[in-house]
Amino acid sequence: MATNRRSFMKGAALGGAGVAATAASSLPAPAIAQERREWRMVTSWPRGLPGVGTGAERLAERITTMSEGRITVEVFAAGELVPALQVWDAVSDGTAQLGHDASYYHIGKTEGAAFYTAFPYGFTSDEITAWVTYGGGQELWDELYEPFNLRGFLAGNTGVQTFGWLREPINSVADLDGLRFRAPGNQGRVLGKLGVTVVVLPGGEIFPALQAGTIDGAEWVGPYNDLSFGLYQVCPYYYFPGYHEPGSALQMTVNREEYDSLPGDLQQLLRVAAEASNSNMTAEYNAYSGPALRTLVTEHGVQLNPLPEDVQLACGEASNEVLNEVYEDGDDITRRIIESYFQFRRDAVPWSRIGTQAYLNSRLLPFAYEITSG
Amino acid sequence: MATNRRSFMKGAALGGAGVAATAASSLPAPAIAQERREWRMVTSWPRGLPGVGTGAERLAERITTMSEGRITVEVFAAGELVPALQVWDAVSDGTAQLGHDASYYHIGKTEGAAFYTAFPYGFTSDEITAWVTYGGGQELWDELYEPFNLRGFLAGNTGVQTFGWLREPINSVADLDGLRFRAPGNQGRVLGKLGVTVVVLPGGEIFPALQAGTIDGAEWVGPYNDLSFGLYQVCPYYYFPGYHEPGSALQMTVNREEYDSLPGDLQQLLRVAAEASNSNMTAEYNAYSGPALRTLVTEHGVQLNPLPEDVQLACGEASNEVLNEVYEDGDDITRRIIESYFQFRRDAVPWSRIGTQAYLNSRLLPFAYEITSG
Repeated sequence: MATNRRSFMKGAALGGAGVAATAASSLPAPAIAQERREWRMVTSWPRGLPGVGTGAERLAERITTMSEGRITVEVFAAGELVPALQVWDAVSDGTAQLGHDASYYHIGKTEGAAFYTAFPYGFTSDEITAWVTYGGGQELWDELYEPFNLRGFLAGNTGVQTFGWLREPINSVADLDGLRFRAPGNQGRVLGKLGVTVVVLPGGEIFPALQAGTIDGAEWVGPYNDLSFGLYQVCPYYYFPGYHEPGSALQMTVNREEYDSLPGDLQQLLRVAAEASNSNMTAEYNAYSGPALRTLVTEHGVQLNPLPEDVQLACGEASNEVLNEVYEDGDDITRRIIESYFQFRRDAVPWSRIGTQAYLNSRLLPFAYEITSG
Repeated sequence: MATNRRSFMKGAALGGAGVAATAASSLPAPAIAQERREWRMVTSWPRGLPGVGTGAERLAERITTMSEGRITVEVFAAGELVPALQVWDAVSDGTAQLGHDASYYHIGKTEGAAFYTAFPYGFTSDEITAWVTYGGGQELWDELYEPFNLRGFLAGNTGVQTFGWLREPINSVADLDGLRFRAPGNQGRVLGKLGVTVVVLPGGEIFPALQAGTIDGAEWVGPYNDLSFGLYQVCPYYYFPGYHEPGSALQMTVNREEYDSLPGDLQQLLRVAAEASNSNMTAEYNAYSGPALRTLVTEHGVQLNPLPEDVQLACGEASNEVLNEVYEDGDDITRRIIESYFQFRRDAVPWSRIGTQAYLNSRLLPFAYEITSG
């Protein structure tokens, strides 16, 4: 489909908006290489979903504006052109040129995809961005997606998530046994090892399932998205930390043939626009999560607690088991991705320990820090 | 100077690289609004300085490429066109159209500028980006810089820094008394309250001063920049956390008249390119700080320790005093910036406590996390 459109455009020099197009039609074609492209971006998000959804729409708008319309991007919400989980296929086969979703939706195609979103007890948003950008992650990603006719780029991050919502409190690891809990992918495998009956549900079906009593709890994202989902209405207990998704990256996928046929400046424009989403979307989550958390606790009476330490330990051990299973069963590229991920982690953890972690712990020491004068 | 160049360009349609320029010269001028701009970016960085310097050069290159040369940016390192600390003035008066430096170099002009880089016990890189982008910080920044004929945008971040290097260990707050220590700006004020003789030195003079024994210690950035500076050769003791710069933002300044005269798509291109630097530069620091830290400890025998808790507490209290002094002495816009900063912080700290901080603490629990199979 994409190829047909491009051939048509090459022949007809579509008279889109913009002055350069006018010029193109009055000059010999090669004199101005201002081909106009009308691209589709399919996404996994309901239209207007705060954070991931608004981030995808912002990314599309920026590509259109910055390229002066040399690429005009039309965004399709989940289900408008293809279902939420078929974004990968649609970009791969050229139904759309661009996609915005999460790579770990597609671990059924290749387990290596998990490491470009989040892995239980894996990277924070800072760490995944550092690993992909400067730690060899992008090169391995290119290799992973090549057989699928895709290029993948980081394009936003939710920041650290929360463990999730429960109808009854968790007091020890024994309380996990028999719990019916909504969790996707590798976190489902982790909890399964601890006796949890894991249920996989799309976001929109979580609230009804909790209300009907067919599940006892669920994870979604974090305070910003969870507040608008209303999960506190059926589950009073909210647990942290979200060790299973400590910094979930979103991806922009590009059909590989379309990407390779772009001039270098447009390739860079796509990459830089996606990269800016890492800053912008993470900022959106961080700016609105604090106020949402306050609302949940003070207005809706949510009981906010850390997972008991024995639960954190058991989940850590189970995460390690899942990681080793993925490694053991993995194909060559998945194993090399995991090896690279681990090599990076060996230096990243000591750095965060004396850096971000030491600072965040230090600022909770009991000294005053407030405006008292004036 | 800038105005002269722009007038010249308008008249002569400079034949720079690119096909659009050719087209412009063979068509009536209004038919293609493809004005070519040759812009200067002055920076506070030595050429090629890892992180901040390479980040500024990358930003300039991206603006040039993505705009197809509609803005061609030439970068000047510190001292090449103006001295390191005159970037603000040069962009303000039009000597250059763009600048890359740190806003807190200019607290002598307006105290409010500190809050767009870092403040002792203030925001992390995630938090300053969230506050500026979605918390009202950008609007106040625009107002702060308006009288100086500047626009300021976040354009990179060093991530969390370290406290610094010392010849002798710090065992308690009493050891700060009489210490001769290099520290800039507000951190200098904080340490001054604890008896430190604060010395202000440009980066390049730190190593010689330590070698000559005229100072007892110094802060610079963090492992990535500090390793290449060689400070470990004269100071074996390295302390954390860098509470005084928990996420130092760099700024891209734009001459306001030049910015306002740009078409909307080029304004957006500048903003998005700067925003991408937040992701890219922070990734560079996070990717290389861990390996640099390992090298410092294992190859150079550096003694890495947290500041004793009584020192952290005393520094916290002194930071609060400095903050209140800045507020008390501040003009109207500085006070409103501090009020906005604090309002944001009131929700940001509880969010990081259950988010990033809880996760980073959890992953240090004693469970195995390594590849053991295969």
